[in-house]
Amino acid sequence: MNQPYEQSELYKLRHSAAHLMAQAITELYPGAKLAIGPPIDNGFYYDIDFVEPFKEEELVKVEQRMRELAKLNQPIERKVVANKEEARKLILTDCTHGQGEETALYKLELLEAIPGDEEVSFYDQKATDKQGKEHRFIDLCRGPHIESTGPIKHFKLMHIAGAYWRGDVKNKQLTRIYGTAFESKEELELYLHNLEEAKKRDHRVLGRELGLFMFSPRVGPGLALWLPKGAMIRDVLSDFLKQEQSRRGYQGVVTPNIASQRLYEKSGHILTYRDKMFPFMEDEEKETFILKPMNCPFHIEIYSSAMRSYRDLPVRLAEFGTVYRYEQSGELAGMLRVRGFTQDDAHLFVRPDQLLEEFKGVVDLMMVVLKKLGLNEYRVRVGTKDPSSDKYVGHEENWRLAETSIKQACDELGLEYEVSPGDAAFYGPKLDLIIKDALGREWQMGTVQVDYNLPERFDLEYTGEDSKPHRPIMIHRAPFGSLERMIGLLTEQYAGAFPFWLSPVQIAVLPIADRHVAYASAIASRLQGYPYKFVAEEEQTPFEPVEGVESAYRVHVDASRQTLGKKIRENQRQKIPYMLVVGDQDCANGTVGVRSREDGDLGAMKLDEFLGSLAGK
Amino acid sequence: MNQPYEQSELYKLRHSAAHLMAQAITELYPGAKLAIGPPIDNGFYYDIDFVEPFKEEELVKVEQRMRELAKLNQPIERKVVANKEEARKLILTDCTHGQGEETALYKLELLEAIPGDEEVSFYDQKATDKQGKEHRFIDLCRGPHIESTGPIKHFKLMHIAGAYWRGDVKNKQLTRIYGTAFESKEELELYLHNLEEAKKRDHRVLGRELGLFMFSPRVGPGLALWLPKGAMIRDVLSDFLKQEQSRRGYQGVVTPNIASQRLYEKSGHILTYRDKMFPFMEDEEKETFILKPMNCPFHIEIYSSAMRSYRDLPVRLAEFGTVYRYEQSGELAGMLRVRGFTQDDAHLFVRPDQLLEEFKGVVDLMMVVLKKLGLNEYRVRVGTKDPSSDKYVGHEENWRLAETSIKQACDELGLEYEVSPGDAAFYGPKLDLIIKDALGREWQMGTVQVDYNLPERFDLEYTGEDSKPHRPIMIHRAPFGSLERMIGLLTEQYAGAFPFWLSPVQIAVLPIADRHVAYASAIASRLQGYPYKFVAEEEQTPFEPVEGVESAYRVHVDASRQTLGKKIRENQRQKIPYMLVVGDQDCANGTVGVRSREDGDLGAMKLDEFLGSLAGK
Repeated sequence: MNQPYEQSELYKLRHSAAHLMAQAITELYPGAKLAIGPPIDNGFYYDIDFVEPFKEEELVKVEQRMRELAKLNQPIERKVVANKEEARKLILTDCTHGQGEETALYKLELLEAIPGDEEVSFYDQKATDKQGKEHRFIDLCRGPHIESTGPIKHFKLMHIAGAYWRGDVKNKQLTRIYGTAFESKEELELYLHNLEEAKKRDHRVLGRELGLFMFSPRVGPGLALWLPKGAMIRDVLSDFLKQEQSRRGYQGVVTPNIASQRLYEKSGHILTYRDKMFPFMEDEEKETFILKPMNCPFHIEIYSSAMRSYRDLPVRLAEFGTVYRYEQSGELAGMLRVRGFTQDDAHLFVRPDQLLEEFKGVVDLMMVVLKKLGLNEYRVRVGTKDPSSDKYVGHEENWRLAETSIKQACDELGLEYEVSPGDAAFYGPKLDLIIKDALGREWQMGTVQVDYNLPERFDLEYTGEDSKPHRPIMIHRAPFGSLERMIGLLTEQYAGAFPFWLSPVQIAVLPIADRHVAYASAIASRLQGYPYKFVAEEEQTPFEPVEGVESAYRVHVDASRQTLGKKIRENQRQKIPYMLVVGDQDCANGTVGVRSREDGDLGAMKLDEFLGSLAGK
Repeated sequence: MNQPYEQSELYKLRHSAAHLMAQAITELYPGAKLAIGPPIDNGFYYDIDFVEPFKEEELVKVEQRMRELAKLNQPIERKVVANKEEARKLILTDCTHGQGEETALYKLELLEAIPGDEEVSFYDQKATDKQGKEHRFIDLCRGPHIESTGPIKHFKLMHIAGAYWRGDVKNKQLTRIYGTAFESKEELELYLHNLEEAKKRDHRVLGRELGLFMFSPRVGPGLALWLPKGAMIRDVLSDFLKQEQSRRGYQGVVTPNIASQRLYEKSGHILTYRDKMFPFMEDEEKETFILKPMNCPFHIEIYSSAMRSYRDLPVRLAEFGTVYRYEQSGELAGMLRVRGFTQDDAHLFVRPDQLLEEFKGVVDLMMVVLKKLGLNEYRVRVGTKDPSSDKYVGHEENWRLAETSIKQACDELGLEYEVSPGDAAFYGPKLDLIIKDALGREWQMGTVQVDYNLPERFDLEYTGEDSKPHRPIMIHRAPFGSLERMIGLLTEQYAGAFPFWLSPVQIAVLPIADRHVAYASAIASRLQGYPYKFVAEEEQTPFEPVEGVESAYRVHVDASRQTLGKKIRENQRQKIPYMLVVGDQDCANGTVGVRSREDGDLGAMKLDEFLGSLAGK
């Protein structure tokens, strides 16, 4: 089942599709020189040196010819030649397809690069069509391929791009044609559909459209500015996690974004992590400061600021800590890879006999978080020591304890996991959570990391029941990973239509005309739980005023002077869960016209009835 | 009434007390050389060059002799001499008090420093005691003094310190003796009491004792690490202000702690504010980044990221933004002056016709905040232009509008204010709130600042009703000032006994013995609003379980194995508002033994009764 992609039928199919495309091109574009055409993750490509510039519109024509050639069901034959000389001859004859020796230019170079002792093979496909015309394509190729072109039915040419011969900018730029192929129509359609979906769900696009965040050249690449709606999502997520952590005995702390370089000398990061650090704040007359790339050394300073006894452990210190890492600008990607981000970080200082329970507690919390976020598909990977390497710090016995505890924690929680030997950090084993999103894409999110190194470096202690000093073990963990990455993922997962509890604006109130604005505001106040006063024209209050906070929803009154239709469309575009339309009848009756994002127009309701329908959302 | 201190009777009294102390010393320490002895803010001092080192214990003896000399009610006479030569003679004779010419060393130097055209005067006091002994003290002095030593009754010598002659480290170090004096016993006692109180309330001491915050040499001076209880106070304060701001139409944003230097070039801070900035993050290959000293330029980037129409204004962007300013290490003082702090910052972008209403809204919010914090004594100062200076940017007409709006806002809110011409920033007028704390000390807290400069520099615009571009006005404001400074102030104001709503731990539950821990935990869960389960020995639940959150207090169960007496003392020291002691009877009856921080032992209560008593706190 779990056959590697490179050995699968699909891989061969795509490789043959690349050849089929090359065949179509040699027929349609005489003189085009073929370079290389491998299968790739989601399809295949072929790099081609065209005589005239090739345009994306022409893909349709190539695709059409491919279909005709596929239908001929040309058998695909593997031919092994005795030596390079024989190969060279074949390239200069058959592989030119009668279009001149210079069209084999790149193939000859490829041949040269094959090691002397390696078998040299060609793949050859041919057939005669109904009109009696002969078609043939032969290519220098290691293979493997499928047996004939018939099964290449469910494919599509995607787009073109420039690519340098052999990836070297000093070489000529070729045209790379990307395509994809599948074994069934359904798979191809699902793939194309998901691609469309992914485009629609792109968090960078939605982030702009929904007013979640922005970047600014004056602030710098990878440094996000969170707009009001994005900042609200951050708050809702943080508040949720803070509450969960508080009931699990975590204690919040707040630490600076900078520290003297002494702190990172002590932690060792100044040696091991320097690449990822921003330039230091250095000045001849002043101490050198470093922008923090991680929170751990600060939490350690807090741990070691007090005497700790075995009865005080575990100490669980949590912080929404904003850290900065100097990623290369080419590696930045929306919110998924940034230079400044806020980790939902915590460090647990535990006794060895508490490791299992605490690890279990952490994993359980992560499960609660994923469930709340609606991320129900994930897999668990346990990173253990590479038995053949000696890069690890800490005693063998400690590692065994930690690896066993992690696995046992998973077992006791009924979690399946795969073990990945060699995936542990040099300072301890870990557990990774890999989430599968609505489009089936995998994202590595939260990690739970055991650490034997930092407690040693900082000489951390607690007094045991035996009155002697003992070394605690540290657990690093971040269920969201970072707010940036998690909000990026959630935006794509929900295509911007966040669940009710997470929506930055939960309810929009839409007065039909200016005379309904006062009533709309009163409705909003009631929903927000603020004191309010509204007296209808007839000097009646259509609903009872409330004292203090009764409900606390996030509400927006759309008092813009647009037509109702335009207002509805705009609020739909903002993916707000509920719209309450209010007009003359509503003012008189104390009702609202409810439109649900999921269920459409629900008609007029008394406000209390609508409020009741929100319970538990 | 509002006579300057330097012209008051108190000032003269203290000056005469300094002379009286010098007289006592010449009598008790023959050969001591007198330097200078002026009145100061809270008393007086005299710098003296003793023959033998002077010890603080000896102050009692000096004080005793002062009392004896005061009782003689020596008349204090002013003597003006004709010229410096005559003064010199007097110094070398009478001012030596028969102890040798060298004792007048410093006085001769002082005489030299008096400008040639200035009157030179001496103050001379003498009397004969009951034993017939003559006492006399004469000193070169500008005065003024009181008329005789009799009224110097209510004084105290405080402490000694080292002080260089003329404040120059190259000169000899003298002994400075500090004292204080008042016109009445009550005033002296209040002063001494307040000094004691201030020591007890010192937020640096309480911050450590109550576990609010810490500093660490490895992190660096002025960079606070907030411990769990301090972090909780930050959260409670922030949540309170966020809620108040949200109902006033503020929108939260989150921006990075660093930016490219381009941002600060544009804002102009790189020129005007460089001294206070941390060293820049510079690297040959990378862009230069700056640790942010203020949030405004980021909020401006957000404002200008969208088209704004007159209907969109005011835009009120709020952020708990952590900024860094490089204060000299000698100027750092606990939480009152730090290098990293979190401002409760907001920037309002308003139309000129909205300035009055928005200013009023801001000042009103500040009043709500002060009331909630129990800071009910304050004064308001309006900083306006210095009419004689031309350092100000912005049109005359705009300044008039802003100054008028600020004053009118105060008038409409019924706030008294003083006007301080020349106190405006170069970019706009402002309003300062100066708070008086429980000990009568003044603290400058929140400021509301109008700004005409940044909107101009960043070319900010909105489209007016006339479809033309207009320039918005900015208001900067921070009701707390910063979380650091406000929590420092509140710690001293309440001597660590924070009001119930603000206490990091509101209720401590104290099980008498280990067998009461389960019951104590159930009580805590109920108070915290968590689901819980407790079944008493008799298989009865002493109170009804609750579903979901009913109350959400911050509760600590003290399960340490101390005696009850020790537990009570420890929780008292932590100034926790309520202690609930639980023992056998309580487990059986579903009661708790309530001890209130303010009202002492309130006896046993049903848990629900106690919960009821908390309502509205």
